[in-house]
Amino acid sequence: MVGCYLGIDIGGTKVAAGLVDAAGNILFHTRVPMVATGDAATGFSAVVNAIQEVFAAKPEAQKSLAGIGVCSPGPLDPRTGIVINPPNLPCWRNFPLADELKRVFKVPARVDNDANAAGLAEAIWGAGIGYHDVFYTTLGTGIGTGIVFGQKIYHGRTGSAAEGGHVTIDYKGPRCTCGKFGCIEILCSGPAIAKRARARLADPANRGSKILALSGGDLEKLHAEAVGEAFRQGDALAQNVLQETADLLTVWIGSIVDLLEPEVMIFGGGVSELMSAFFGRIKENLPKWCVNPHPTEIPIVRAKYGSDAGVAGAAALCRM
Amino acid sequence: MVGCYLGIDIGGTKVAAGLVDAAGNILFHTRVPMVATGDAATGFSAVVNAIQEVFAAKPEAQKSLAGIGVCSPGPLDPRTGIVINPPNLPCWRNFPLADELKRVFKVPARVDNDANAAGLAEAIWGAGIGYHDVFYTTLGTGIGTGIVFGQKIYHGRTGSAAEGGHVTIDYKGPRCTCGKFGCIEILCSGPAIAKRARARLADPANRGSKILALSGGDLEKLHAEAVGEAFRQGDALAQNVLQETADLLTVWIGSIVDLLEPEVMIFGGGVSELMSAFFGRIKENLPKWCVNPHPTEIPIVRAKYGSDAGVAGAAALCRM
Repeated sequence: MVGCYLGIDIGGTKVAAGLVDAAGNILFHTRVPMVATGDAATGFSAVVNAIQEVFAAKPEAQKSLAGIGVCSPGPLDPRTGIVINPPNLPCWRNFPLADELKRVFKVPARVDNDANAAGLAEAIWGAGIGYHDVFYTTLGTGIGTGIVFGQKIYHGRTGSAAEGGHVTIDYKGPRCTCGKFGCIEILCSGPAIAKRARARLADPANRGSKILALSGGDLEKLHAEAVGEAFRQGDALAQNVLQETADLLTVWIGSIVDLLEPEVMIFGGGVSELMSAFFGRIKENLPKWCVNPHPTEIPIVRAKYGSDAGVAGAAALCRM
Repeated sequence: MVGCYLGIDIGGTKVAAGLVDAAGNILFHTRVPMVATGDAATGFSAVVNAIQEVFAAKPEAQKSLAGIGVCSPGPLDPRTGIVINPPNLPCWRNFPLADELKRVFKVPARVDNDANAAGLAEAIWGAGIGYHDVFYTTLGTGIGTGIVFGQKIYHGRTGSAAEGGHVTIDYKGPRCTCGKFGCIEILCSGPAIAKRARARLADPANRGSKILALSGGDLEKLHAEAVGEAFRQGDALAQNVLQETADLLTVWIGSIVDLLEPEVMIFGGGVSELMSAFFGRIKENLPKWCVNPHPTEIPIVRAKYGSDAGVAGAAALCRM
């Protein structure tokens, strides 16, 4: 085994660790609890535990390890590998995560946010292979983006660039959890889809929609997944809700294309699975929302990596 | 004279030509009529005439000429130097402008659009010196932008990137001349400022505003310049109109910062002169329209080059 990478995906409650080869294949994958509420050393020991589990299962990995990459909740500084002050990781305040990993494991280490890293994995190993200018979007509970030029993450001034989920398309629109108004995240994330469906179902004429039955008859339990499942079962209201979401995404994609004209737009995350049925509709309507003369030539595609985007992305950081 | 450049700025009715030294100083400047409605050769001869006028005035320039750069109306392909089909230059359809200039003058030649070129001149010689990631905006009759990373114009897939003036902040808003809705151009260009003032002046209570007197009492003749002049004279309505424009620009700048986190934002063009009095207000409000944790650290500054941005920008293309 020559030149494999460890990809670590840290969340508020768990640490996922994967062994990834030079072709982006995930050879082994494990997960341990994160201890986010204790001190910095305890939080770090959870990461070390995850890595030790990989080495225990794949002893040969330790010798051929070329680097460790980490996706961590931000804010963080990708240039120094310092985790600044993530709300859901109170254990770490200005914690030099990359340096600590280098010290313990004697290999290069990098830290970045999840959407940047996932975009890099797609650019190097996934749906972005062969493209210089890659725009990656993860649609899920939130909307994250990553900008990758020439297989390098574009970081901007301090590493805080590529917050495309908070680009405003409707400044008079609903307030986003970030505090801004009419961000694409508040309009097209999973919760936004659920909210749109709930609003429609408030009309008694729509109570026959399968969405309600798939949510156990309880509007409060309605999630985007139920809308997706109802759509797959031919439900007209679900189709309408997802079309409206696609049309709002089209406005946003149009602005991204006009500003960055990427060579490919890659969509990952759970909600992309629902939305991919509408990629054709988005492409068809894109010329109305672009001054770019060739928007339909830009592929709009699903990501290669699914639930393992974090681990693959983290590993890809070792290739920057 | 070592290594000077010719910067050519082509419009629908005129060709401006300037001799620019390696430090970005404009040593000589002239202007000849453009012949845009004839055949390709006639259009090209106008450009040659402009260059010959520079050589006639500055004979030593011909020997030290290091390159010719051209700003041309688009669409054009900056990689090949082919002017594709500009609406206001019917003389040229897929005209290889860069190659023709190379053939005649035996020096390297490059062609790009005006905002890209002006942004490059600022990055190399102007308000963007010392910054890697530069975002340039020209506010005028339209809104154009240029993205410059490491003193190279970011072109995107086909050279059509950086159409930031057509980023949508209000998709339910007014229709832009480009066909999209709620672009920043239709909300904050010079004509948008004039339109906003006109709408306010329709209210008889506002007829005392100096804007009306400065427009000769004729709403149809009202231009953004009159709003600027009234503001300088202390007119409250003019201040209000420009503040509202600044607040819309803030939304847009917030999205640009969240997406690209540039190191500096440079504003050129005639309307920037009006708006620069509101840069402080924009900066103050920017945190409300950014998830970026440090938006106020990004300088928002006036461009160095004014009416000569086209010539300087064209010359800067020789440095890419």
